[in-house]
Amino acid sequence: MKNTSLCYIEKDGRYLMLHRTKKAGDENHDKWIGIGGKFEAGESPEDCMLREVREETGLSLDSWRFRGIVTFVSDEWGTEYMHLFTAHSFTGTLLDCDEGELEWVEKDRIPSLPIWEGDKIFLRLLDERADFFSLKLCYQGDKLVRAVLDGREELI
Amino acid sequence: MKNTSLCYIEKDGRYLMLHRTKKAGDENHDKWIGIGGKFEAGESPEDCMLREVREETGLSLDSWRFRGIVTFVSDEWGTEYMHLFTAHSFTGTLLDCDEGELEWVEKDRIPSLPIWEGDKIFLRLLDERADFFSLKLCYQGDKLVRAVLDGREELI
Repeated sequence: MKNTSLCYIEKDGRYLMLHRTKKAGDENHDKWIGIGGKFEAGESPEDCMLREVREETGLSLDSWRFRGIVTFVSDEWGTEYMHLFTAHSFTGTLLDCDEGELEWVEKDRIPSLPIWEGDKIFLRLLDERADFFSLKLCYQGDKLVRAVLDGREELI
Repeated sequence: MKNTSLCYIEKDGRYLMLHRTKKAGDENHDKWIGIGGKFEAGESPEDCMLREVREETGLSLDSWRFRGIVTFVSDEWGTEYMHLFTAHSFTGTLLDCDEGELEWVEKDRIPSLPIWEGDKIFLRLLDERADFFSLKLCYQGDKLVRAVLDGREELI
């Protein structure tokens, strides 16, 4: 079991995406995702998210919103609880990231990039939902086999 | 690190409280708390909460709201991420609980019961906040030494 954070930083209709090309043995290798990583000892979801954004991008967030939790269940990896944030206001200059290439990508182009199938669901929820959501995604290998929203609504 | 759920079931201005008197070595011994427990393998926050409510009370919830996450940091125990719910609608009949006595307690009487200091903060937030919140509570022994709301506002 692990707890992680993920943040989509938005500017001019684009999200800051990380194309994960650099890290050996990365389960997200070659995928495009937001900015985030694992909780360290004693960190709250915000502590982790703000640290990861700072380390991976060099940016400091002025404001952010905690948007949801995604429970990933997999037959290959342990269960992951991902704490999902969006942010619209920041200071600083983009760094080189040691996990991949950072790129501002238009939001409507993202579903056509190599991303996990379930990511399309929570990216849609980020657009559609104003309130907090809880999404459970069950994978067999790379295949999404079940998606449950807020503990009651079966999406697939 | 552990992930847990906690649910306050409400009826007629009262919360269903568990007076934890029965479990040996319970870190909550003699305290009054809501209904909950640890995540089991592959459970989402809702899966865990619904199972714990069923096991500890015999009740089935018809509807609930996911209200917040509380990060407990302690010099005595590992960090705990508690997923906080409220519920207003249920079916079933109260069971005997093997962890303590169940009692419907008027909400305004709860702060005067033996409860953790930080619990008073999140119980107040449940009354005051409509939106999701994230609260970090840092304890030294039984003493609350720091409380941070939404990663930015120092409450104590």
